[in-house]
Amino acid sequence: MTIHDTKMGKGPVTPQSVTTGPIQGSRKVYASPAGHPDIRVPFREIVLSDPNEAPVRVYDPSGPYTETDGGIDLNNGAPLVRKGWIAGRGFETVAGRAVKPEDNGNIAADKLVAACPAERVIRRGRPGQPVTQFEFARAGIITQEMRYVAHRENLAREEALAQAAEKLADGESFGASVPEFITPEFVRDEIARGRAIIPANINHPEVEPMAIGRNFLVKINANIGNSAVVSTAADEVEKLVWAIRWGADTVMDLSTGRNIHNIRSWIMRNAPVPIGTVPIYQALEKVDGDPLKLDWEVFKDTLIEQAEQGVDYFTIHAGVRLAHVPLTAKRVTGIVSRGGSIMARWCLAGHRESFLYERFDEICDIMRAYDVSFSLGDGLRPGSIADANDDAQFAELETLGELTKIAWDKGCQVMIEGPGHVPMHKIRVNMTKQLRECGEAPFYTLGPLTTDIAPGYDHITSAIGAAQIGWFGTAMLCYVTPKEHLGLPNRDDVKTGVITYKLAAHAADLAKGHPAAQLRDDAISRARFDFRWEDQFNLSLDPDTARSYHDETLPKDAHKVA
Amino acid sequence: MTIHDTKMGKGPVTPQSVTTGPIQGSRKVYASPAGHPDIRVPFREIVLSDPNEAPVRVYDPSGPYTETDGGIDLNNGAPLVRKGWIAGRGFETVAGRAVKPEDNGNIAADKLVAACPAERVIRRGRPGQPVTQFEFARAGIITQEMRYVAHRENLAREEALAQAAEKLADGESFGASVPEFITPEFVRDEIARGRAIIPANINHPEVEPMAIGRNFLVKINANIGNSAVVSTAADEVEKLVWAIRWGADTVMDLSTGRNIHNIRSWIMRNAPVPIGTVPIYQALEKVDGDPLKLDWEVFKDTLIEQAEQGVDYFTIHAGVRLAHVPLTAKRVTGIVSRGGSIMARWCLAGHRESFLYERFDEICDIMRAYDVSFSLGDGLRPGSIADANDDAQFAELETLGELTKIAWDKGCQVMIEGPGHVPMHKIRVNMTKQLRECGEAPFYTLGPLTTDIAPGYDHITSAIGAAQIGWFGTAMLCYVTPKEHLGLPNRDDVKTGVITYKLAAHAADLAKGHPAAQLRDDAISRARFDFRWEDQFNLSLDPDTARSYHDETLPKDAHKVA
Repeated sequence: MTIHDTKMGKGPVTPQSVTTGPIQGSRKVYASPAGHPDIRVPFREIVLSDPNEAPVRVYDPSGPYTETDGGIDLNNGAPLVRKGWIAGRGFETVAGRAVKPEDNGNIAADKLVAACPAERVIRRGRPGQPVTQFEFARAGIITQEMRYVAHRENLAREEALAQAAEKLADGESFGASVPEFITPEFVRDEIARGRAIIPANINHPEVEPMAIGRNFLVKINANIGNSAVVSTAADEVEKLVWAIRWGADTVMDLSTGRNIHNIRSWIMRNAPVPIGTVPIYQALEKVDGDPLKLDWEVFKDTLIEQAEQGVDYFTIHAGVRLAHVPLTAKRVTGIVSRGGSIMARWCLAGHRESFLYERFDEICDIMRAYDVSFSLGDGLRPGSIADANDDAQFAELETLGELTKIAWDKGCQVMIEGPGHVPMHKIRVNMTKQLRECGEAPFYTLGPLTTDIAPGYDHITSAIGAAQIGWFGTAMLCYVTPKEHLGLPNRDDVKTGVITYKLAAHAADLAKGHPAAQLRDDAISRARFDFRWEDQFNLSLDPDTARSYHDETLPKDAHKVA
Repeated sequence: MTIHDTKMGKGPVTPQSVTTGPIQGSRKVYASPAGHPDIRVPFREIVLSDPNEAPVRVYDPSGPYTETDGGIDLNNGAPLVRKGWIAGRGFETVAGRAVKPEDNGNIAADKLVAACPAERVIRRGRPGQPVTQFEFARAGIITQEMRYVAHRENLAREEALAQAAEKLADGESFGASVPEFITPEFVRDEIARGRAIIPANINHPEVEPMAIGRNFLVKINANIGNSAVVSTAADEVEKLVWAIRWGADTVMDLSTGRNIHNIRSWIMRNAPVPIGTVPIYQALEKVDGDPLKLDWEVFKDTLIEQAEQGVDYFTIHAGVRLAHVPLTAKRVTGIVSRGGSIMARWCLAGHRESFLYERFDEICDIMRAYDVSFSLGDGLRPGSIADANDDAQFAELETLGELTKIAWDKGCQVMIEGPGHVPMHKIRVNMTKQLRECGEAPFYTLGPLTTDIAPGYDHITSAIGAAQIGWFGTAMLCYVTPKEHLGLPNRDDVKTGVITYKLAAHAADLAKGHPAAQLRDDAISRARFDFRWEDQFNLSLDPDTARSYHDETLPKDAHKVA
């Protein structure tokens, strides 16, 4: 294994290298579904020391960075997995919007981070032609992305496991429809129903397609983002690579401040996972941080800017309506969502309806043209146990349901963001209500945190809630790090957050009765019972930590074999 | 705050000093119920910077060690909270069993750790007189311990909170009977029904009484224990003090190896919390580690030895019957409980019924005479997701139900140990079955761990399960540290395990609708919303970590005020 740590530095640093090489004890493999050699799906294979034990294959979002020799060149960007598929769809090629000084915060030339030099054609869908995965699915067309996702979810199995029906019957999925085996047609059908999305902008050919939906494996998201204080482009690309190394299925770039456009170019060109953003953050930067200066034109321009760069999903806080804001007046913690606060301020200042809500049709038209998926933001999510499940939160959720149907009618893919801080006994109703109001569109929740009293440990307070809401039907869990409420996560915090959410998502898959989830538990349990320590380490979510904890007290190799 | 770290060293070190002084931002207070000045119940009070915010009072098991000047002298032991109460009950005073060389593992004189010099009268209950809290409760007598516990559970409130009924109605307690206000009579009634215990050996006058039962606050246990490799008596007393500092309600001493009797004397004499042990561990040491040499005589002698030292509860694996052992044959991870393995080996080797089961009446008679509570061990708990809820586990649970009734008939207090490794969807049935089989005797569970694949993070995989089973009705949660399955926990691991379980127990209290649980969440949420950083840190379960995480990225004092 070769680890090249990123160069850290101050000033306008462009990325040179990132962490590469396999996770200890694992090797990267690619597998294609029968008859589709152009679809090469990545997996991680853990080879065990017992010759009677087959290698264990696991889902792997880490991209080329975990290959033994991935030939990584950040200036060229990641492999163009979807290039041929996208090129075959007849989209319009456009010159693209010219980069403006405000896109990078009007930064001085000597502080400007250079954009990633990797050149990509910019495409846009035409009216009338199918562009989004939702439109293809509705038209009965199985895209390469759908086929890829099916093979990926099956971990390259070509048929159902023998025990699949039994496992499903043994689980409790609260009305989900997890099948014994994922066919491409099943993927298409789930997307056509709006029950799943494949976030994959047509300008993000580097994406290794993945599905978010309650009838697929539960996914996790990690947030990254620069800060004027401590980050550079190099840091952000390394954070991306580091987060997906440990299992983040998507990454949200929550950058603010300067160089935001150019840093994003490095992230996008090197991201094998879908990237999400909150465009209102950058729009606000463009109007000097004053919410009252926001308007449709600057927002629309930002949407196009980011869509052309290839962002796969946008958080849009269109559910924060003027009428909802007074519902937060009696809250203990008011409005804690940054996007929610911005829009509430905008609405209240002029006593006017949100332009995101009023222009929702136009937002849909833009997002459809690039297949940017909606992540309808929960701007009124509760920020404390006291505020959970209140009128403001649920009024917004009802609006999100209304918007979901509009977005579907416009051909867009949609998921819905959820809370927040919720005590255990109030979690289930969030899921039930979301499924009902939003027609089973995938739910994407932050935690929820099940108590407010443990800052420093909120990855854990939230993992308790996340595992439960994932079990109940949430499709993707947004991670929380130990620094939540306290500060900016560092490298260790990002890893801790990702591993914590991987285990929560896996606990949810097990409880739902996912046909194959328990294979890894069984393999590690056999290794444990046999005292095959190296196998136990390598099968774990974090082999490095498992090994080092063991070696602290029992360092001798003799203690690692039976 | 003064922190005196314990002296670490090799060889026969006796404890000199431990961590003392208040938790940052807190102060120790004592409060007596009206008319009972002899009952001084400890609390921790967090004073806030906002003059409109009342100090927040929290439950505090940390004993005199968190006083500003506790006058701690480990050679004298902790204050004798119960001395007068016990003396007033007319128990027989006995010379006590003479210490034998095998009690300390036949260790050489120069390696022998001296016993704690604190002298205590040794008492034993007579046949016919009430000895145990259960017997007093059944006789309609409210003991000082019951009165103490009521005041403690109420956090010294003299009447119900105004919102108590509303909070209870808002919660979901799965059939628990949490009252608006805990009266001494309620405590008595819960103990008489067997739904709660107050583990308090009549030879442990240092104990600050606490209750374990589903209608009280959810409690947590931390395990300590020496190892031949790295621990000394000094280490163990510091581990005890450290664990209760952060919130452990009881501590189990799982020591093995040499000096076990004398190390225990230091622990007992300095423990303000109930101490539990697994006597079969020491009995095994006395027969050179060979399970086949175990017999009733050595076990009985060990019970008396430990009961006279003041151990408050014993894990007794009397449910591992000969007929149950073959039920584990097809398991992935066999028998993972150490006590369970010992007894299974003993039963199988001679194809004979467990002497713990056959001598259960006699065990009860011994334990009753000192009021040692039963913690009926789950020797057949599952060690993997694959083995959860299997025939072996449930057969043992049914036997534990049978034994519970016998122990009650004998006048003993009883709680029941539970699993282990259980996926989320199989947790609830454990609780339901335990309540039914064991007549609502308190359940005391290890986790459960909700997946096997995250060694290094098993405090989290298990906190997910612990929060849920606590919500469903488990009375006490046994902590799991990050080193579970990998090695021996160090000081940081113990703290991480305790804090993780405190937050899980609190999440359970919130979900059950405990009338007062949310007060602390609300206080910290108001502090957060007001940017009162110091208040937020001080109200958190771990002020030191919250503060240091904040200071990593935003160290300036200016960032700590609004």
